[in-house]
Amino acid sequence: MIVVMKKGATPEQVEKVKSKVKEFGFDHHVIVGEERTVVACVGTGNRKDLEGLRLIDGVLDLVPISKPFKLASREVKKQTTVIPVRNGQVEIGANKIVVMAGPCSVESEEQILTTAKAVKQAGATILRGGAWKPRTSPYSFQGLEEDGLKLLDLARKETGLAVITEVMNPRDIDVVERYTDIMQVGARNVQNFSMLKELGQCKIPIFLKRGLSTTIQEWLMSAEYIISSGNPNVILCERGIRTFETATRNTLDLNAVPVLKEQTHLPVIVDPAHGTGFWQYVTPMACAAIAAGADGIMVEVHPKPSEAWSDGGQSLKFDTFNELMRQIRSIAHAVGREI
Amino acid sequence: MIVVMKKGATPEQVEKVKSKVKEFGFDHHVIVGEERTVVACVGTGNRKDLEGLRLIDGVLDLVPISKPFKLASREVKKQTTVIPVRNGQVEIGANKIVVMAGPCSVESEEQILTTAKAVKQAGATILRGGAWKPRTSPYSFQGLEEDGLKLLDLARKETGLAVITEVMNPRDIDVVERYTDIMQVGARNVQNFSMLKELGQCKIPIFLKRGLSTTIQEWLMSAEYIISSGNPNVILCERGIRTFETATRNTLDLNAVPVLKEQTHLPVIVDPAHGTGFWQYVTPMACAAIAAGADGIMVEVHPKPSEAWSDGGQSLKFDTFNELMRQIRSIAHAVGREI
Amino acid sequence: MIVVMKKGATPEQVEKVKSKVKEFGFDHHVIVGEERTVVACVGTGNRKDLEGLRLIDGVLDLVPISKPFKLASREVKKQTTVIPVRNGQVEIGANKIVVMAGPCSVESEEQILTTAKAVKQAGATILRGGAWKPRTSPYSFQGLEEDGLKLLDLARKETGLAVITEVMNPRDIDVVERYTDIMQVGARNVQNFSMLKELGQCKIPIFLKRGLSTTIQEWLMSAEYIISSGNPNVILCERGIRTFETATRNTLDLNAVPVLKEQTHLPVIVDPAHGTGFWQYVTPMACAAIAAGADGIMVEVHPKPSEAWSDGGQSLKFDTFNELMRQIRSIAHAVGREI
Amino acid sequence: MIVVMKKGATPEQVEKVKSKVKEFGFDHHVIVGEERTVVACVGTGNRKDLEGLRLIDGVLDLVPISKPFKLASREVKKQTTVIPVRNGQVEIGANKIVVMAGPCSVESEEQILTTAKAVKQAGATILRGGAWKPRTSPYSFQGLEEDGLKLLDLARKETGLAVITEVMNPRDIDVVERYTDIMQVGARNVQNFSMLKELGQCKIPIFLKRGLSTTIQEWLMSAEYIISSGNPNVILCERGIRTFETATRNTLDLNAVPVLKEQTHLPVIVDPAHGTGFWQYVTPMACAAIAAGADGIMVEVHPKPSEAWSDGGQSLKFDTFNELMRQIRSIAHAVGREI
Repeated sequence: MIVVMKKGATPEQVEKVKSKVKEFGFDHHVIVGEERTVVACVGTGNRKDLEGLRLIDGVLDLVPISKPFKLASREVKKQTTVIPVRNGQVEIGANKIVVMAGPCSVESEEQILTTAKAVKQAGATILRGGAWKPRTSPYSFQGLEEDGLKLLDLARKETGLAVITEVMNPRDIDVVERYTDIMQVGARNVQNFSMLKELGQCKIPIFLKRGLSTTIQEWLMSAEYIISSGNPNVILCERGIRTFETATRNTLDLNAVPVLKEQTHLPVIVDPAHGTGFWQYVTPMACAAIAAGADGIMVEVHPKPSEAWSDGGQSLKFDTFNELMRQIRSIAHAVGREI
Repeated sequence: MIVVMKKGATPEQVEKVKSKVKEFGFDHHVIVGEERTVVACVGTGNRKDLEGLRLIDGVLDLVPISKPFKLASREVKKQTTVIPVRNGQVEIGANKIVVMAGPCSVESEEQILTTAKAVKQAGATILRGGAWKPRTSPYSFQGLEEDGLKLLDLARKETGLAVITEVMNPRDIDVVERYTDIMQVGARNVQNFSMLKELGQCKIPIFLKRGLSTTIQEWLMSAEYIISSGNPNVILCERGIRTFETATRNTLDLNAVPVLKEQTHLPVIVDPAHGTGFWQYVTPMACAAIAAGADGIMVEVHPKPSEAWSDGGQSLKFDTFNELMRQIRSIAHAVGREI
Repeated sequence: MIVVMKKGATPEQVEKVKSKVKEFGFDHHVIVGEERTVVACVGTGNRKDLEGLRLIDGVLDLVPISKPFKLASREVKKQTTVIPVRNGQVEIGANKIVVMAGPCSVESEEQILTTAKAVKQAGATILRGGAWKPRTSPYSFQGLEEDGLKLLDLARKETGLAVITEVMNPRDIDVVERYTDIMQVGARNVQNFSMLKELGQCKIPIFLKRGLSTTIQEWLMSAEYIISSGNPNVILCERGIRTFETATRNTLDLNAVPVLKEQTHLPVIVDPAHGTGFWQYVTPMACAAIAAGADGIMVEVHPKPSEAWSDGGQSLKFDTFNELMRQIRSIAHAVGREI
Repeated sequence: MIVVMKKGATPEQVEKVKSKVKEFGFDHHVIVGEERTVVACVGTGNRKDLEGLRLIDGVLDLVPISKPFKLASREVKKQTTVIPVRNGQVEIGANKIVVMAGPCSVESEEQILTTAKAVKQAGATILRGGAWKPRTSPYSFQGLEEDGLKLLDLARKETGLAVITEVMNPRDIDVVERYTDIMQVGARNVQNFSMLKELGQCKIPIFLKRGLSTTIQEWLMSAEYIISSGNPNVILCERGIRTFETATRNTLDLNAVPVLKEQTHLPVIVDPAHGTGFWQYVTPMACAAIAAGADGIMVEVHPKPSEAWSDGGQSLKFDTFNELMRQIRSIAHAVGREI
């Protein structure tokens, strides 16, 4: 931590800072510049204590030097984490690109089975489908809940696909874990810290979507919550952030892909359906995601999007999904990856 | 709902839209403009069904006409809601401005009692204090949990102040409700819909903070979750949104005050501590909030901010809080309100 | 400037940084922390040169310590600047709150004269009115240009009010300066650096609106362009920033008022008309601005807003403007200021 | 335009709206819904007049139906525009991907000539280089001005590359046009409408960068300014928008590529250097841009980035630029394009 003093801070004020730094168990190095003096704090004290220095007279600002995440950091673990799903049947973060596809919501046995077979046929290895749905309006369809889980499980048995679904309430973690291979934390729960801690005690991988206004650093801190609670298998999913632009539902932040690849060893998936909000932009942005270095994509596929109970506007039909697969296969090869 | 057709949409495409609209239980009115045709849908069908129209060939866009919130809307209930707290000892939304003050976190018996007495003396009527703390980092202090609740309860008994505290996990609702007069939903949980539904079954008022990137409409929809689940006593709290500006921790959106006063009957509180992030900006922004029409403010007060376990940088000392009270009293009178 | 090395940076990499720092005319102080090493650079070399250090192997980040603005900074000039307008007939930044009012666009002699008289009567001391209008669409009304300036001049003569108008093109500076008392730089030109430099050579004060996505620091750097080119009389105007919220046209950032009061000696005006975009929110936000510490407000007033050629939706009628004046007078007194 | 009435609007208020709509030269269609009444306005009157309807009692909102841009719209011109540069030596918008490369600023004859040769060798067809530089600080290097243009011209003659450079002041348009093949409008001038109108009278193509907080619709309106003033050859350049994320300098909005491809016939270039701000993210995002459907990229290349006078941190060395070319060539082929 660097303590920046105001111009004209008195020697007494600098002394006060130094004695506080000492008291908190850090060493201090005072550097007198042309314009102002700074005090660098070095050591293994509790960094949190230093926050109070901001309130000492004569202090202008505090500048943190260390990154706050540790277990998620590539500085700590150089090698990219490869996460085995369903006993290693699928690996996320390896050379092979992973495609997760399926309807926004599980609606019926026929819907989920038809879709599961279609996406498997096209090359997806993980089936997605929502049983609890986070909807802005209490008057919108809220999901089939446990019945939805059972249908996912059925589709899993019929097709052999691994399954991912969202959990919204810590109370549901047990039941969800029973029926699924990956548990998803939705964008609106990325800083639901109570739930993250509980998910840290689960055995299966956690798929952590970025929040609408979560910085990359905060997102990695949320991953840190899960890992430090005992579950090292966290998959990050960029799904668009909220900006001033209204032509799309969100702004897909593909910059996050190379940034994450530099800062963390965790695998990175991109969701171009939520990231754009319109089906016709999904395929180009899926291609862009793979080209930027993502380890996979998650997309919404529905037998009849115009009759979907949720998110129909951003869902692909079976034939457009086939075309998406064709295109991303070509991009994957161009960047030296399999699919 | 208005369905906007593309330029050059064919008569067959318009017919397709009309028949679908009919099928969904709505009437249609076709209006042929100079540039394009629109189809207005009128009736009491399920509006959600209409979303699928976006996917019909020839359709450019859908434009919703109705606001999605009902119970929270001032169109439905003209009169401002006045919410009684602790058997009516305090009222929120009445002419009298409400001041909620106290430490970010409950830290110790001495800390909370001293603070409670000081803020009561200065004119606050509600004591705030966190027992569970949503912290970005898992390595930061996470709150005293139930012990913190007991200390709040003690301070309540000693001073007679009403008490507000945050709940972060549906599992904790019962225990929190036992010790407090108002339950707070933090910014990061504003769209934690599972928890909102459960809070809708509580008897005490809910204090709903706006999320970092929640639009006013989405925020009102979250209030709608609570009200439609059975609890009409929702208090809205503007606490700053996330923008590109980094000189402050958040951007306090005081525009939200007159907008909410127009759109909803629920009372509106402003939190200038989180809204700015720096103690020296809290008093001017508290004054601005009252001038804009807020029904009260929530601020952080600590006996010694430089030693606070959380949010010290935005906490007021007892004397600066006294000065804040002096200033907002003056503003309150200028706008015809008591304090 | 603080150079932060990566974890595990080699001694050779640190040496490379040190020798570069020396070469650029700075002294270096190396601080070896538990996690990483930092190199503090002190001295009077050209800070710009240090930017290149970011590209040396082993360097993680550069952290600037000094603020980049100087002439605009309160660290350099403690006393608030009071700017005399029209030979000191009006002062901006003094105890007396300044009210600038008038139509968005100058439309006709009758319109501008009627409005000028009405706003003067109500207590405004500066007349605003646009002769060149920055419009998003080339098909919208673009202003009366020099004819508009002549009408402003006429209104000035008839009423004795000082006059402010916007300049959009460096080519027009001469003609605009001839007819007006303050020249306005619109939000979209806040980083039109060529024009700022030319305005630095003018004799009359410059009214510098914040851009839609300009940080406070960048805005002060734009003021610095004008001041360092020779014109010390810069007035800052907060007019709302662009955020994700769509319930209002912009998000009025009143936090900027106390932040600016701390960081700069320049006077600060608030424009609640552009800051909200709807006339019914203008008066509460004008009150909030004064309560937050602004030195004045700029609002749009039109004899018949529903027939205005631009911005009618956010313009006040004469009677609502009178009511605004009544309310802000009351707030001004509450904060110890005249109006 | 659709006029939405408030719930409970009186028949008299609806009549008032109807008579105003008539007066403005439009036809009206009244649709009475369950919740509220709407009035659709159809015809060829001046849409601007309708804005005033918002102020009539009983009116809740106005909802525009038509897009405001015409000449830039793909609804008006279906075929993608191919823009010939330097007598057709290069085409922008055709199947062949265009690469524009060169230093941020022109610094010296040696610098620009070496770079021009290197980027040509690697496959670029257009040389970029700034002669006037928009810098946040007045104390930063402002460009070599006309001397810079002469050096660009020299490099053009030596290598045969076409040349692009930025114009910042309408006064400089003539001299810039004399030395260059494409004139660039920088992000901060995208709504410098005075300059856009003057550029509409130029003969060479205009390269219009998106502003930091410009919506896609506003950006197309700025293109409309140029086209409607007489110059149809506008090239759009996505270069990142400003968001809350600070890990990158800007957030590159690649969503804009498929959105623009749908809405306009103008060619689209992506600038991943400004869009990320760090050289190490430039190549992955250049690949992503091509995969998303961009017609080309603009990147910064410098013989020695650590000594660049501006933007060194986001500039590529010759060898990293060669590697970028190798990678985007591979992506281009994967999407069926040449380079």
